Amino acid sequence: MKWLHKDLLDVSQLSHAEVMAIFETAGRFQELQERPVKKVPTLKGRSVVLFFAEPSTRTKTSFDVAGKRLSADTFSLAKSSSSLQKGETLKDTALTLQAMAPDAIVIRHWCSGAARFLADRLDCSIINAGDGRHAHPTQALLDSLTLHQEWGDMAGKTILILGDIAHSRVARSNVILLNKLGAKVRLCGPRTLLPPAVKHWQAEVYSDLTEACKGVDAVMCLRLQLERQHDGLLPDLREYARTYGLGPRHIDVANPEVKILHPGPINRGIEISSALADCTDSLILDQVSSGVVVRMALLFLYMTRKGDE
Amino acid sequence: MKWLHKDLLDVSQLSHAEVMAIFETAGRFQELQERPVKKVPTLKGRSVVLFFAEPSTRTKTSFDVAGKRLSADTFSLAKSSSSLQKGETLKDTALTLQAMAPDAIVIRHWCSGAARFLADRLDCSIINAGDGRHAHPTQALLDSLTLHQEWGDMAGKTILILGDIAHSRVARSNVILLNKLGAKVRLCGPRTLLPPAVKHWQAEVYSDLTEACKGVDAVMCLRLQLERQHDGLLPDLREYARTYGLGPRHIDVANPEVKILHPGPINRGIEISSALADCTDSLILDQVSSGVVVRMALLFLYMTRKGDE
Amino acid sequence: MKWLHKDLLDVSQLSHAEVMAIFETAGRFQELQERPVKKVPTLKGRSVVLFFAEPSTRTKTSFDVAGKRLSADTFSLAKSSSSLQKGETLKDTALTLQAMAPDAIVIRHWCSGAARFLADRLDCSIINAGDGRHAHPTQALLDSLTLHQEWGDMAGKTILILGDIAHSRVARSNVILLNKLGAKVRLCGPRTLLPPAVKHWQAEVYSDLTEACKGVDAVMCLRLQLERQHDGLLPDLREYARTYGLGPRHIDVANPEVKILHPGPINRGIEISSALADCTDSLILDQVSSGVVVRMALLFLYMTRKGDE
Repeated sequence: MKWLHKDLLDVSQLSHAEVMAIFETAGRFQELQERPVKKVPTLKGRSVVLFFAEPSTRTKTSFDVAGKRLSADTFSLAKSSSSLQKGETLKDTALTLQAMAPDAIVIRHWCSGAARFLADRLDCSIINAGDGRHAHPTQALLDSLTLHQEWGDMAGKTILILGDIAHSRVARSNVILLNKLGAKVRLCGPRTLLPPAVKHWQAEVYSDLTEACKGVDAVMCLRLQLERQHDGLLPDLREYARTYGLGPRHIDVANPEVKILHPGPINRGIEISSALADCTDSLILDQVSSGVVVRMALLFLYMTRKGDE
Repeated sequence: MKWLHKDLLDVSQLSHAEVMAIFETAGRFQELQERPVKKVPTLKGRSVVLFFAEPSTRTKTSFDVAGKRLSADTFSLAKSSSSLQKGETLKDTALTLQAMAPDAIVIRHWCSGAARFLADRLDCSIINAGDGRHAHPTQALLDSLTLHQEWGDMAGKTILILGDIAHSRVARSNVILLNKLGAKVRLCGPRTLLPPAVKHWQAEVYSDLTEACKGVDAVMCLRLQLERQHDGLLPDLREYARTYGLGPRHIDVANPEVKILHPGPINRGIEISSALADCTDSLILDQVSSGVVVRMALLFLYMTRKGDE
Repeated sequence: MKWLHKDLLDVSQLSHAEVMAIFETAGRFQELQERPVKKVPTLKGRSVVLFFAEPSTRTKTSFDVAGKRLSADTFSLAKSSSSLQKGETLKDTALTLQAMAPDAIVIRHWCSGAARFLADRLDCSIINAGDGRHAHPTQALLDSLTLHQEWGDMAGKTILILGDIAHSRVARSNVILLNKLGAKVRLCGPRTLLPPAVKHWQAEVYSDLTEACKGVDAVMCLRLQLERQHDGLLPDLREYARTYGLGPRHIDVANPEVKILHPGPINRGIEISSALADCTDSLILDQVSSGVVVRMALLFLYMTRKGDE
């Protein structure tokens, strides 16, 4: 497949065939990851800027590993060290980055729409690594790849997304992508953590966790952002854990082979019991591996889109 | 030209011919930067330490890109993470760095003379990336390269440097270099932001911005370091913007093809109007590109000076 | 020698023959370090995670240089930027790192036993870069390599370790290694900075520094961790410097060719007089060079242990 998109802003841009092309490319890179020497010269001489205006070791390291495994040079620009501190606008930072002529910019930003803002103004590829509450396409792609590698076709499967739906770009991107891949989506969380527009989402909404778990093929837990607690945006944690923390009794009513996912870092005993996080049906570590190969696939497809493969 | 200098401490060290050799080398690297794969193996196996005791994403990233485009390994040593915190002296840090045998150390330091201090004690090349209020030779070289690429010969051109002259190592290095290249230099800024010794500088001093702009071929704005405001070192910003912020009415009296430069990050609406920063005669983004290739040229010339090209 | 260990947790794991194999490998890398191009392709395509949960520029940079000189890719994970901030457990961080499939993880952690904790759970090699008050095997190896390169055989030599023995993983690892290599070890420090169990250590304990120095072949100063002062864990510094700061009068009673070591960063005038730190018998900078080549040797031996050299 000849890749035509310049930027990855959200999964809604991608056709079913394009998602499959990403998964197939990722699958080929997965095989490389099982050899003793995992690095390939595919993107030798290319450069990727990792511009993270919000801290995120996990996603950033995953992109860094992905880039270097393809022999690209990576350049980290963290919030604390960037000119943002000096009051520079996002536009000026972006134009400055572009003037250094990277082949792609991976951006994580607290502001919804930041990735599009850059994409509209810059010639190089922009990969959205999470913008505000808007979208987190690479997380959704790695989640679906993880399930795809387990199941093959996702048509007819039912997946529950559990937790703080309202503040989660991960939830939003996953609802779109899972539907595109033919799965049914359920959402469950306390009323205060559901977005006002949830009734327009292509998903069934549950308030009772046991009900929500009945017969599901997978549960995707979301992370409670504990650092938000002082803003009064979070419910009481004990209460939350008792009512919405995933435990064995919920799993008992699900499909016997139910898969468990969590984007990490896990708050053990809050979003999910420690036993479940480590059980054989947990795909949490597979998600991390999928993350590296999905990002390798994306960097490859977007950075070589001009037919210079 | 066989490169003879071990260190780049300030532009005053360089002859006119040497500056031209740097520009010529930078020009060759510029051509490489227009190819899809921008990296060359020139400095493969060499290592550069980026020792930044003052934060500066822009200059540091520029050197990082420059080093990696030449296939050198770069090692970042930031203030907050360095042993400086543990009370180590600059001398001990420097000797420790040298014992790891890098080929060059790029140093940014708040203390005027820090680069020379290292140069006197270490065998490897020292590149001054800004020391206190003293010098910022790579900024001056990239500014002049940008104008050189626009104009060719700079003899007979008049360039205005505008803003906080007193605290600016950029101003000081630019005055020296522009004169060396045959240009005439004007300085303009509020009296409190002119250095006491300005009358000994090779430049005409103006207090009125419109007067200063008359007939000039280029205006170099300096950055107001807003973070210094709490020290009482800055004038009132509104007052400053009204009197010394560059706007269309100043440009009206300049050469019709006047070029506009700013080292970034820009405080839009303070040092310069947003419209001017983005106008077609603005070379602000060219400066960023020039920065990468000037630093490639410098790393190349200084790191291969022993005739092993 | 075929390398059999998966992990380096402490020097106590290593036989005399294995230490010699490390020194011999380091010696070969030392020769490479004297060539203009110091990089070799030995570990091309391999990756090393530098996971430093305690700040340490010196050790981290040394491992970073060592890895890159061998053409490995290095990935830095610093405390402040890591998910530790988000409350993730060490186990989850470790499993996440492993899922990215590095060939080795170098870990510095404030918690004694952290390296073993990872080694027990992960398939990849774990190199302990200092865990709590427990062990710092790479520092001990570089200290002994430095002396070995000076003396050859260490049998019959007497080495004094001076300072804050109680809080020093460097002291503990050095006592074990120096004994293994046939040297005699003396310890000296104020009573409050000796560990309760010191009488079980294979070393003679002195409270008077002049007595302790009599006839010794080397003095290893330890670093006083001044940042601990606010915990009330340190003695008065002036008093300490007067009684336990190493000065010329102590050296007068030692072997005339006594060697002086310090792991750095030095608090000049506290642990050691500035003159002594810079004297010709000081090996402090040799230690830094030895650090790079010992870590090159360790990364090489542990990362290629599966016979794929």
